[in-house]
Amino acid sequence: MLYERFERVRRLHPLIHNITNYVTVNDCANILLACGGSPIMADDPEDAVEITAICGGLNLNIGTLNQRTIPAMLAAGRRARELGHPVVLDPVGAGASRLRTDTALRLMEEARPTVIRGNVSEIRTLASGSGTTRGVDADVADQVTEEGLDGAVAFAKAFARRTGAVVAITGAIDIVADGERAFCVRNGHPMMSAITGTGCQLSALTAAFVTANPDAPLEAAAAAVCAMGLCGEIAHRRLTDLDGNASYRNYIIDAMYRLTPAALEEGANYEVR
Amino acid sequence: MLYERFERVRRLHPLIHNITNYVTVNDCANILLACGGSPIMADDPEDAVEITAICGGLNLNIGTLNQRTIPAMLAAGRRARELGHPVVLDPVGAGASRLRTDTALRLMEEARPTVIRGNVSEIRTLASGSGTTRGVDADVADQVTEEGLDGAVAFAKAFARRTGAVVAITGAIDIVADGERAFCVRNGHPMMSAITGTGCQLSALTAAFVTANPDAPLEAAAAAVCAMGLCGEIAHRRLTDLDGNASYRNYIIDAMYRLTPAALEEGANYEVR
Amino acid sequence: MLYERFERVRRLHPLIHNITNYVTVNDCANILLACGGSPIMADDPEDAVEITAICGGLNLNIGTLNQRTIPAMLAAGRRARELGHPVVLDPVGAGASRLRTDTALRLMEEARPTVIRGNVSEIRTLASGSGTTRGVDADVADQVTEEGLDGAVAFAKAFARRTGAVVAITGAIDIVADGERAFCVRNGHPMMSAITGTGCQLSALTAAFVTANPDAPLEAAAAAVCAMGLCGEIAHRRLTDLDGNASYRNYIIDAMYRLTPAALEEGANYEVR
Repeated sequence: MLYERFERVRRLHPLIHNITNYVTVNDCANILLACGGSPIMADDPEDAVEITAICGGLNLNIGTLNQRTIPAMLAAGRRARELGHPVVLDPVGAGASRLRTDTALRLMEEARPTVIRGNVSEIRTLASGSGTTRGVDADVADQVTEEGLDGAVAFAKAFARRTGAVVAITGAIDIVADGERAFCVRNGHPMMSAITGTGCQLSALTAAFVTANPDAPLEAAAAAVCAMGLCGEIAHRRLTDLDGNASYRNYIIDAMYRLTPAALEEGANYEVR
Repeated sequence: MLYERFERVRRLHPLIHNITNYVTVNDCANILLACGGSPIMADDPEDAVEITAICGGLNLNIGTLNQRTIPAMLAAGRRARELGHPVVLDPVGAGASRLRTDTALRLMEEARPTVIRGNVSEIRTLASGSGTTRGVDADVADQVTEEGLDGAVAFAKAFARRTGAVVAITGAIDIVADGERAFCVRNGHPMMSAITGTGCQLSALTAAFVTANPDAPLEAAAAAVCAMGLCGEIAHRRLTDLDGNASYRNYIIDAMYRLTPAALEEGANYEVR
Repeated sequence: MLYERFERVRRLHPLIHNITNYVTVNDCANILLACGGSPIMADDPEDAVEITAICGGLNLNIGTLNQRTIPAMLAAGRRARELGHPVVLDPVGAGASRLRTDTALRLMEEARPTVIRGNVSEIRTLASGSGTTRGVDADVADQVTEEGLDGAVAFAKAFARRTGAVVAITGAIDIVADGERAFCVRNGHPMMSAITGTGCQLSALTAAFVTANPDAPLEAAAAAVCAMGLCGEIAHRRLTDLDGNASYRNYIIDAMYRLTPAALEEGANYEVR
C-alpha cells in the first residue's frame, strides 16, 4: 500500500511551494528533490499567491515566522484551498510564544490544512488553544509512550475529526490519524533529534506525498512518516565512529534519494489502530 | 586560456557581495570560498550599498525576493555600476510570477549586469518580457538539445547583443555568449539537478570569475561554467552506492576546493561557435 | 577545569535563542545540538522577546542584520539582561558598514553582552567606535601574531574592563579575556577560514557554554574556543585527498558531537597571561 503512495511521488514529481523557516530550508529543498518532488520557495505576500497557483501543494512552516511571512502564509494558504491543493501545516514552536500559537490557529482556520504535523506539545497546544512548549522540542511529560499510546491515538483521532485534517504527531512513536484510523509508526532513530530540522523535512516530504496522492491523504502522510523514519534507520547504520549529527543529516537525505517504493513497503513498521 | 581565468581567482581572492535567496545561500558562500573568493551577504537597503562599495563584484539572485530585498538589489546594482564592478544577475523563477519577471527586467535595466545566468526558460522570459516557467526548473520543451543548438546559440548571441551582457544559459548543454562568440559547454552531470542550488552556486562562482578577470567577462564566465560542470563530474565519480544528493552536494564543493587551474584547462569540454 | 565547563553543557542542555544571519544559521543550530545544547531561532520583534524569556541564553549575530531584526535584537537583548540571561554578541562585519558598526555599538550599550566574540578587526572597530574591515574577515594587518601577543592581550583586557564583557578575539591565536586574565588559545587549523561560519558557530557554542556555566563566563568562553579549535584539528586529520571545505564543515560538527569533556581537557592548548 505504501509502495503505491511513494511510487506516485517518484512518477509525478509534485512541485511544492514551501513557506518555511530559514534555518532548515535547504534541507527541506534537498529532501524534496531526494524523494522525487521539486521545491520552490516564495514568501513575499505579492509573490507567494502566484507561486502557490503554479504548484501542486503547499507546505507552511512557522519556524521563523515574521510580520512579512505571516500574511504570505495566510494568503497562500487561502489560495491553495481555493485551488484544491493539499496544504501541510507545521506549527513549529506553537505554545512557545503567543505569536506562534495564534498564527498556527489562524492558519488552521483559514488554510484548512490537509495535514497538521508537529510534535505532541505543539499539537496539544493547537487542540487546547494554548500551551507551553520548551522551545521547538516536545516536553518530556508529553511524550507518547507505549502505555499512553491508546490515549494518544484517541486524542489524535478526535483532533482530526474536529479539524478535518490528517494529524501527524511525531516522536518516539509516531501517530498519523484521521477521524477513523490511526497509523502507529515505529520507524526512526532517537539520534534524529540531534539534527536540526528532521521534523521540518518530514513536513516538506509529507506535502509531496499528499500532493501526489490527493485521494488518500491518510495513507500518503503515513507513507511519508514511515519513509522518513526508515531513512533515519538506514542512515544510522551507515555511521562510523567518526560521524556525528552533520554526517547523519547528509546520510538521511542520501537514504531518501536511494529509497525505492519496494524498500519502503518492506521496511515500514506500523500498525493501524 | 581557462587556466589563467581560474588562476586569477585563486590569486586575487575577489570579495563578492551576494544578495541571494536564503535557500542556497550557505552553499553559495562555501563554493565562493572553495574557488578562492570570499563572500559577504548584506540585503538591507541601508547596508547593501555600503557593502557593495567595499567588494569587488556583486551577485544578484531573486530566488526569494521580497519587498525589502528588491530595493536593496536595485540600489546595490546601481552602486556597483557606478563603481565599475561586475554584476551577475540570476533571474531565479523569472516567468513563474509577475514579481519575479518584473524584478529581473528592472534589474537588467538598472544594474546593467555583466553576466545574466539562468536556465533557458528564465532567459527566454527575459528576452520576450514575459513567460511561463515551471517553478525554478526549465520547461522540458525549452531544453537545449544538440539539434536545437545552433538556434539556441543565435538566440543567446542576439540577447547578449541587445543587453550588452554575457548570457549564460545552463542546462544539458550550456551556452555562454556575448554578441560575437558562444562557448558551448558539455561538462556537468544530470544528477546536479537533484541538488538544490547548483545554479545559484554557479552564479556566485561566475561573479568571482568575472571580478577577477574584468577584461575578459566572456572567457571568465565560460571558465566558471566549465569549472562547475567539471566539479559535478569529479564529484559524481566519487559517489558510492550509499551516497545520494546530500553527499553529492558536499562532494561538488569539495571538488571545487581541490580543483587546480591545470585540471580545469584539462577537463573543460567546450567548443566555440 | 575545562572538563567541568563542557560537562555542564552536556548535562544541562541549555536552550539558546539565536538571532543570527541566514547564511550560517543551519550550522549554528547543528553545532548547538552537537555540543549538547538546543537551538531556537525567532527574529520578529513580537516573537523574539517572548522566545528569549523561555530560553537560558541569547546569541546575537549581525551577519545579515536588517530593519526588522535590529529591533528584535535590541528588544531580546534588553529582555535577556532583565532576566539575567547570558548574552553573546557577534559583531559580524563591524567596520565594514556604518549600519553594522552602529548596531553592534548599540547592542553593546543596551544588551550589555556577557561575551563579545569577533575577529580582531571587528573588535578593534568596537573599541575605537569606528573602523574599516575587509568584509567579514580580519584585515591581515590586524592579525594577532606571537610578537604582538602581549599587546593584543593588554588590548583585550582593557576592552573587557571597559565593557564588563568577556572579550574573545579569534584568529590564528585566540585571546579570551576578562579584565584580569587572558586565555591565549592555540587550537584550531587555518583551513577553518575556508568554511563559511566557523566564527558564527563558535559564538553559538559560546552562548551554550556560558549559559550552562553562569558563574564562570571567562572559563566557559575559553572552553568553547578551545572546543571549537580542537574539533577543527580532529576534523582536519580526518580529511582525505578528495575532501574539501564542505566535508570539513561536516567533520567539525561531527567532531563536536563526539567530543567528550575528557578529550577537551586533554586536547585544549592554552596558556593564561
